[in-house]
Amino acid sequence: MDIENLQQRLRDFAAARQWQPYQTPKNLAMAMVVEAAELVEIFQWLTPEESQNLDAARREHLGEEIADVLLYLLQIAAHSGVDIEAAVERKLTLNARKYPAPAGSD
Amino acid sequence: MDIENLQQRLRDFAAARQWQPYQTPKNLAMAMVVEAAELVEIFQWLTPEESQNLDAARREHLGEEIADVLLYLLQIAAHSGVDIEAAVERKLTLNARKYPAPAGSD
Amino acid sequence: MDIENLQQRLRDFAAARQWQPYQTPKNLAMAMVVEAAELVEIFQWLTPEESQNLDAARREHLGEEIADVLLYLLQIAAHSGVDIEAAVERKLTLNARKYPAPAGSD
Amino acid sequence: MDIENLQQRLRDFAAARQWQPYQTPKNLAMAMVVEAAELVEIFQWLTPEESQNLDAARREHLGEEIADVLLYLLQIAAHSGVDIEAAVERKLTLNARKYPAPAGSD
Repeated sequence: MDIENLQQRLRDFAAARQWQPYQTPKNLAMAMVVEAAELVEIFQWLTPEESQNLDAARREHLGEEIADVLLYLLQIAAHSGVDIEAAVERKLTLNARKYPAPAGSD
Repeated sequence: MDIENLQQRLRDFAAARQWQPYQTPKNLAMAMVVEAAELVEIFQWLTPEESQNLDAARREHLGEEIADVLLYLLQIAAHSGVDIEAAVERKLTLNARKYPAPAGSD
Repeated sequence: MDIENLQQRLRDFAAARQWQPYQTPKNLAMAMVVEAAELVEIFQWLTPEESQNLDAARREHLGEEIADVLLYLLQIAAHSGVDIEAAVERKLTLNARKYPAPAGSD
Repeated sequence: MDIENLQQRLRDFAAARQWQPYQTPKNLAMAMVVEAAELVEIFQWLTPEESQNLDAARREHLGEEIADVLLYLLQIAAHSGVDIEAAVERKLTLNARKYPAPAGSD
């Protein structure tokens, strides 16, 4: 996935619609958590097992919500000067330190 | 960003810690919205202007929360058979249809 | 507000619709955060000032979302054996300890 | 629960700490969803059955998070001119219309 290209397309999309005044990181964070909750809504009444076996309609819906959250993350990062790929690598390193693997497992 | 590579690393990380029984899409969605709210928390008492001018410590914190949300999105997609890049392109097409640009703007 | 009466009415409402199997605290917590995000959605693109001056339609919408979140809180508490009024008093005491008032202010 | 009394105590608490400038409905909504997600976090890795049988420590933690969300709801309502009890009754009426009970059940 070409993150910078996506971020540029999102910037152009917002500029063409004159949305920039609304797109503060604060507002984008709010919009992001709204989409995150719409993703949660898909699963709220499902059993754990049902959540592992979505039908095609729900899987497509899930794809839309994943995309919505992701696109807001990309915009928050772009507006805040965060390098997503570096942040992901740093986080993976932190996680490996925080949750050491049992001996012999990796 | 190499999404499949990241998804494989996350799968190996979880397997080494025997976390698979916990990682249903339902549970991962809950974990994702928790991280999304931690991102919101960074901005909750800031003015719109302050949210546009994070200091270095907050920017680093923001990078961690963006990474946390993103890593859960990748896992939800992997466990549910969602192709993230295709979902993103489909969503961008839907958005362009839903919010037509003013004439002459793009 | 008569909390126990509301909790009884919610219990009867769910029972009449045979919703009990779905109403685990885990699922109710998911439903609650979804409603919480719908409340956030009302404010996401508003300036701080606009958020202080909602028109009648938005105020009515806000009332619905407040009620939705509250009704799920009441159900989570009922299903988990939490005494809400006691929890609120305990929390207010904790907050007063955590954030001491400046001398002479209260 | 005496809602107006609680709202007055919350107003006094905020005033004594000079928090009023931060307490726009927009900011309070953000803080509310953060607490809602902290409530979700309690349940994220639990099975549905485990969520129905919290131990004493988790039940106390749950009480704190319920109180946190509720106290922000009360503040949002107070700052926005929403009458919570009227909103709850209206919502219960709407729900009864939206989800009619099967014949003979209530």
